[in-house]
Amino acid sequence: MTERTAGLMERMLAGDRTALAKLMTLVENRDPETAEVMSRLHERCGRAHVVGLTGPPGAGKSTLLDQLVAKLRAERRDVGIVAVDPSSPFSGGAVLGDRIRMQSHFLDEGVFIRSLSARGSMGGLARSARDLTRLLDAFGKDVVIVETVGVGQTESDIMRLADSVVVVLVPEAGDTVQAMKAGLLEIADVFVVNKADREGAQRIKSELELMLQLRPAGGWSVPVLLTVATQGTGVDELMRVLGEHRDYLTASGEGRARAVAGRRYELLAILRDEIGRRLARGVESGVASEILRKVEDGEVDPYAAVMALLSDEDLVGRLLRSPRAGSEGNA
Amino acid sequence: MTERTAGLMERMLAGDRTALAKLMTLVENRDPETAEVMSRLHERCGRAHVVGLTGPPGAGKSTLLDQLVAKLRAERRDVGIVAVDPSSPFSGGAVLGDRIRMQSHFLDEGVFIRSLSARGSMGGLARSARDLTRLLDAFGKDVVIVETVGVGQTESDIMRLADSVVVVLVPEAGDTVQAMKAGLLEIADVFVVNKADREGAQRIKSELELMLQLRPAGGWSVPVLLTVATQGTGVDELMRVLGEHRDYLTASGEGRARAVAGRRYELLAILRDEIGRRLARGVESGVASEILRKVEDGEVDPYAAVMALLSDEDLVGRLLRSPRAGSEGNA
Repeated sequence: MTERTAGLMERMLAGDRTALAKLMTLVENRDPETAEVMSRLHERCGRAHVVGLTGPPGAGKSTLLDQLVAKLRAERRDVGIVAVDPSSPFSGGAVLGDRIRMQSHFLDEGVFIRSLSARGSMGGLARSARDLTRLLDAFGKDVVIVETVGVGQTESDIMRLADSVVVVLVPEAGDTVQAMKAGLLEIADVFVVNKADREGAQRIKSELELMLQLRPAGGWSVPVLLTVATQGTGVDELMRVLGEHRDYLTASGEGRARAVAGRRYELLAILRDEIGRRLARGVESGVASEILRKVEDGEVDPYAAVMALLSDEDLVGRLLRSPRAGSEGNA
Repeated sequence: MTERTAGLMERMLAGDRTALAKLMTLVENRDPETAEVMSRLHERCGRAHVVGLTGPPGAGKSTLLDQLVAKLRAERRDVGIVAVDPSSPFSGGAVLGDRIRMQSHFLDEGVFIRSLSARGSMGGLARSARDLTRLLDAFGKDVVIVETVGVGQTESDIMRLADSVVVVLVPEAGDTVQAMKAGLLEIADVFVVNKADREGAQRIKSELELMLQLRPAGGWSVPVLLTVATQGTGVDELMRVLGEHRDYLTASGEGRARAVAGRRYELLAILRDEIGRRLARGVESGVASEILRKVEDGEVDPYAAVMALLSDEDLVGRLLRSPRAGSEGNA
């Protein structure tokens, strides 16, 4: 590890926000030192309550987040926020607006906000979100809230890292069906029907409760809360429920089971990622150049080439052995 | 290859739409036979003009697509469509509506439509889109149109497989800036300002043209077209421009250069994918069980475990050697 990075880590662990921000940039850029940084922070992690917040655009997630943060701060709990915008850069405007709204907390030393966009994170949004969450955890945040817009594959991957997943919906026709289709019933620990002063809130609540009853009994019973985030209505109850869910995770052993599954998932994700990077580097630096040329010329199709490559253990060994430093990030 | 799959391929190449649909399902589910199917179809591919169509939700892409298909059919050209909805399942309603609208072509034997959703494709949306496009190409379609909503990382990856990328915008404030941020200037071969009967169409056209002028001269000059898809206005010109772009790709040699880069990209993507799958299978079947247990118990952090794993060439060899069939898809 370079002296600079070691220094950053030391300062970060001593509570230096600037050092934290710099380490976040390093990790987001997949600097070659990322693995070592995350590895060294490992034993500092696992203390924070990681809350996932997801739902469709316009559900009022950011307003709800704002309210949650205010409540947490009133209890003197330190908060970290990772705001992920995985899908369309066209929503840039709205997200930017949200961030500006969140600036009520920007001057608060107890709150640390970091945005993650698809463009910034070199294609590894779920991994970056996970690493940033760990950094905030190691930094000593009591609660880390990970916010995503929408619920595609990337968002589901991101929600895997949360202890408690809050899914926010609004009282609009079709939302429950969409939620079901999107597999939200499986990932939600808490449903929030926001903008509950609008027509149809009670109906969507009943629909969700009905669908939740169809799930096998036992374990955590997923509550459906009504909130009006703009007025702060229902936020106290959400706080209470999140506390209960955390207690449930500990008492039932499900928290540990989730952590085990999460670590297994993480191991595979990092392994896949690291190997992918080494292979790309190996191929680009001339290992397997003959097969690459044949594929580029259209002589051999890529699928056949991959099968041929993988059956040559010697070649795979050479590809994976290509040095770690080099073409990667801002080394 | 199983007899069933060999039979499907034969019937598909003879023009059987049902066989094509079944092969698409096989490929989308990542059946173990996928690689062999795609490999055998390789030499049948490369004939279709692959057009990418992207832009923000609500830009009228589906209406434009509908119009394009009608024009292509009037010229007796066969059309394949891959409609990708990568981001939010919440847009399901809208997309479904579009599909229903597209049913004007559903009874037309010359048009084949396939939708791809994030949930259906097991996390490999770009790869599935590529494979479905190849299948349609091999099936004999003259034009294959790949439509995506939004322009995140996945969408950019998907657009890489197109010969000609059409980016559709609408005359709304901020769109050009967002387009620039999203890197659309780099991927667009044609800009379309749709809903051009609304205020501001001419302004956004000028802004785009100005930004395009800032790019290095030479090569293809990206046109900015005005359309009103609901009335069919401007669609003839779009058809003409797409033809010109295809001619340009051939004449300039850029088509070949793109194909070479595309195949290189595809090789790496498939390699990464295949290795990732083999590793997951290897880890799950008990190879590296000791290190897995340590990670699950939190004794070793996942990053350190990956570094340890990859430095043990013997272990990597055993992981990668795990048999292809088994836990994968509907074998």
